[in-house]
Amino acid sequence: MMATLCDDSKLDILQMDGYGDIHHSICIDSGVRDPSISQEVAKLLELKAKLGDEPAKKFDLKCPKGTRDYNPIQMAIREGVFNTIIKCFKRHGAETIDTPVFELKATLTGKYGEDAKLIYDLKDQGGELLSLRYDLTVPFARYLAMNKINAIKRYHIAKVYRRDNPAMTRGRFREFYQCDFDIAGQYDPMLPDAECVKIVVEILSQLEIGDYKIRVNHRKLLDGMFAACGVPEDKFRTICSAVDKLDKTFWADVRAEMIDEKGLDPQAADKIGFFVKFSGGLDVIEELLKDASLATQKEAVEGLQEMKLLLQYCEMYKIADKVVFDLSLARGLDYYTGVIYEACLQGYTHQPTSPASGQEEESVTVGSVAGGGRYDNLVGMFDAKGKKVPCVGVSIGIERIFAIMEHKALATNLKIRTTETEVYVVSAQKNLVEHRLRLCQELWDADIKTEQSYKKNPKPLDQFQYCESNGIPLSVIIGQSEIENNEVTLKNTLTRVERKVSRDALVQEIKKELAQLKSQ
Amino acid sequence: MMATLCDDSKLDILQMDGYGDIHHSICIDSGVRDPSISQEVAKLLELKAKLGDEPAKKFDLKCPKGTRDYNPIQMAIREGVFNTIIKCFKRHGAETIDTPVFELKATLTGKYGEDAKLIYDLKDQGGELLSLRYDLTVPFARYLAMNKINAIKRYHIAKVYRRDNPAMTRGRFREFYQCDFDIAGQYDPMLPDAECVKIVVEILSQLEIGDYKIRVNHRKLLDGMFAACGVPEDKFRTICSAVDKLDKTFWADVRAEMIDEKGLDPQAADKIGFFVKFSGGLDVIEELLKDASLATQKEAVEGLQEMKLLLQYCEMYKIADKVVFDLSLARGLDYYTGVIYEACLQGYTHQPTSPASGQEEESVTVGSVAGGGRYDNLVGMFDAKGKKVPCVGVSIGIERIFAIMEHKALATNLKIRTTETEVYVVSAQKNLVEHRLRLCQELWDADIKTEQSYKKNPKPLDQFQYCESNGIPLSVIIGQSEIENNEVTLKNTLTRVERKVSRDALVQEIKKELAQLKSQ
Repeated sequence: MMATLCDDSKLDILQMDGYGDIHHSICIDSGVRDPSISQEVAKLLELKAKLGDEPAKKFDLKCPKGTRDYNPIQMAIREGVFNTIIKCFKRHGAETIDTPVFELKATLTGKYGEDAKLIYDLKDQGGELLSLRYDLTVPFARYLAMNKINAIKRYHIAKVYRRDNPAMTRGRFREFYQCDFDIAGQYDPMLPDAECVKIVVEILSQLEIGDYKIRVNHRKLLDGMFAACGVPEDKFRTICSAVDKLDKTFWADVRAEMIDEKGLDPQAADKIGFFVKFSGGLDVIEELLKDASLATQKEAVEGLQEMKLLLQYCEMYKIADKVVFDLSLARGLDYYTGVIYEACLQGYTHQPTSPASGQEEESVTVGSVAGGGRYDNLVGMFDAKGKKVPCVGVSIGIERIFAIMEHKALATNLKIRTTETEVYVVSAQKNLVEHRLRLCQELWDADIKTEQSYKKNPKPLDQFQYCESNGIPLSVIIGQSEIENNEVTLKNTLTRVERKVSRDALVQEIKKELAQLKSQ
Repeated sequence: MMATLCDDSKLDILQMDGYGDIHHSICIDSGVRDPSISQEVAKLLELKAKLGDEPAKKFDLKCPKGTRDYNPIQMAIREGVFNTIIKCFKRHGAETIDTPVFELKATLTGKYGEDAKLIYDLKDQGGELLSLRYDLTVPFARYLAMNKINAIKRYHIAKVYRRDNPAMTRGRFREFYQCDFDIAGQYDPMLPDAECVKIVVEILSQLEIGDYKIRVNHRKLLDGMFAACGVPEDKFRTICSAVDKLDKTFWADVRAEMIDEKGLDPQAADKIGFFVKFSGGLDVIEELLKDASLATQKEAVEGLQEMKLLLQYCEMYKIADKVVFDLSLARGLDYYTGVIYEACLQGYTHQPTSPASGQEEESVTVGSVAGGGRYDNLVGMFDAKGKKVPCVGVSIGIERIFAIMEHKALATNLKIRTTETEVYVVSAQKNLVEHRLRLCQELWDADIKTEQSYKKNPKPLDQFQYCESNGIPLSVIIGQSEIENNEVTLKNTLTRVERKVSRDALVQEIKKELAQLKSQ
């Protein structure tokens, strides 16, 4: 009954080169001085040295399944996206922290519900049992409990790991970035929560990746609704997981899952089917507040009142047009206790153009790009006395945003510079390498971004072509006559205008010219 | 014969909470519709839901051994160090790439010699066999071969993983950052190599962490020297590993390792002992060029000539005073083929002040902070036809630099701001939350870094104290009279000067005041 989701052994063919075992057998304790052991080690090392001389055997030249490299153009796009996001987080007064890429396995256990099967474990190599982090929220909660922090507003941008079925052209990876912003502390209802929604609006608007909506809901309202529908309390979370699939699956399938797999009474399922259709603004909340079956559930009423307050705050933040209350939003993770939200791009279809996977795919909607919610009990799970620190946060899922930005960059055919070089030092003749090196030293030490050829006697044409194809705006040319006159030729790559500049005034003249270019 | 180095099971006590197995048994294939299986799943889910309600059991609240969190102050220091380093890499025209945190195990196999025992493997969860990256060099070589890139100058800043014995107060971790700069391409001797040394000088000088020296040597010279001393060729790498320990160990111990463990002839060892004492500048190179036994070894002569050229280029780059040729420098890694170098801080003793490990330690020298070299064969190990791409690079090991910077920050008692908030919105009276929210919206949308209290009715004193303790330079105060007059009070936190500002001119007035503060 192991799920096929977790098992990709049939899909990947891996060829080991066979050296692995040898390496393990030569873990040498430098304290060992027993001569017989030493001799054994020496023999093994000799054996290994011989193996090392054999040509490398064939193996898969690839990234692990579901992961990818970023080339310089992708990195330039990524840097732009990160800058927008970090600027927004800092605009809201956040500090930043970092945590290790792996945690003790026990730290992650019991936090993710049905998703726990997707956690990457490290091999037991004779120490602690470790797992790669699955998100940044659980490590954050562990950090708060460990350092006894009661209030903090922090952002954390880092990679997380999920052994999910990758769909790389749609931006779904096994290694991917999360950009998290969280507010921890005992505060008044919906004030931190509304700010998280505001942050999503600021970031998605500034990234200009198309229209979007932020669906909001409340776990208490969901639980109250489940209770009102007659779902037994011990089934709340698993039924919630089923509801979570509604954005990808038809109601009929979700209903079947509830009844057939999760043993829910069909009548209860149908009542849930009635409620999950509610979606809209303050008017819908008011309508639900009048519903007789919800009114009997304290949690439902509390949830609705908080939803109402959230939507009112969203109006004051002038983001109400982006926010939709949606009773079908559930979010998969176990740890949410209050407001939950998810931002989806509206009808954006993404045509994969550079299929890294080698497969072609139909146009697909990119969908969810941010999500989060309130988790008031998570920190308490790490505290010896169960002391709680209420938290709310949002996570921007930027792989999908990268995919869209990349697509846009390709579509507009805009040349993206991947370096910032300002000056190229060109030798017009042979045997001037010493002069070039001295020039570069001078420019680098004056903080001017400078490159030169790594050939001793590069051809002038090659050097000018390098400038043009890399968009380097200026070149400094030296030849015999320049050296004799203690000057250099300063050339503008775009206009091709050249002028002689005194060697001593070079740095100053370059800075002047760069300032002019920047102001244009 | 498993090394104690690899085995820390005795040091760490880990208590699992026992839920792990349950999670594994509920990996549900959503395609399964067999009713008997569904019922089993439902039973298991019920069981799990019950378990989920039990209080979390006690477990270690800590980071994995050899890793650590970064708190906001450490992150602020880290950001400063990264900025200096990235600025330098960009000044030299580098692009940047990124690679996954794990690679196929086969990609790392056979690249690290005796250090391979320190590689972290992932658990076999039914897919590819994976390992955490050990450095950024091997992934870079894999990237070049995979994408058939013949020339690139790139930097890569990312965490790498080594199951080494941690010494955290000395900045030695199992998860740590490397900042790598590499030049790949077929170029003329020592031109890219010298630039790497220049980069180390620029970075270490700008970080102002004390005096340092860069030791340089050459693998060909080492191999030629080993040959001249009578070391059999198949022992070159293992003897080289022994020489590598000379910076931490006495010659007598290294000699014993060569003879007792590695089976070297004592006479050969003594000849090596003669050569490894050579250290200095161009004069020492000239002296060795006259040595009769080295002169018979083609590799030794080539290595010496390249060392000579490197030192000459260093003179042109005005960094010769920082560079020392040292025939005892070996570097542990197998893949180097030419120039090798290592930067060490001179006599810096680091007094651990906040021992995260809970242990006290004597003052210790921080030692090596950067290293690298030429590796011309590594890319070829990944190419099906063995096509080589010559590479040279440098890696800045910044954990030690962080440790020093943190120590400096603590010693100077300088308050480090961890946020960049410019304005705090203060309500002088109760029931003004709506006005505060509208003000914040306006300021955020004008790109002013703004915070407010998350309490509905915060006390004025608390709000002003927050400004002062967080170094927020301005506050905007609203009360009933301000609202009636369509104005706000703008207060300078430091001078405590207040002035009334028209509500409509607020953004403009704040920007003016911030510009003034910045220019001061």
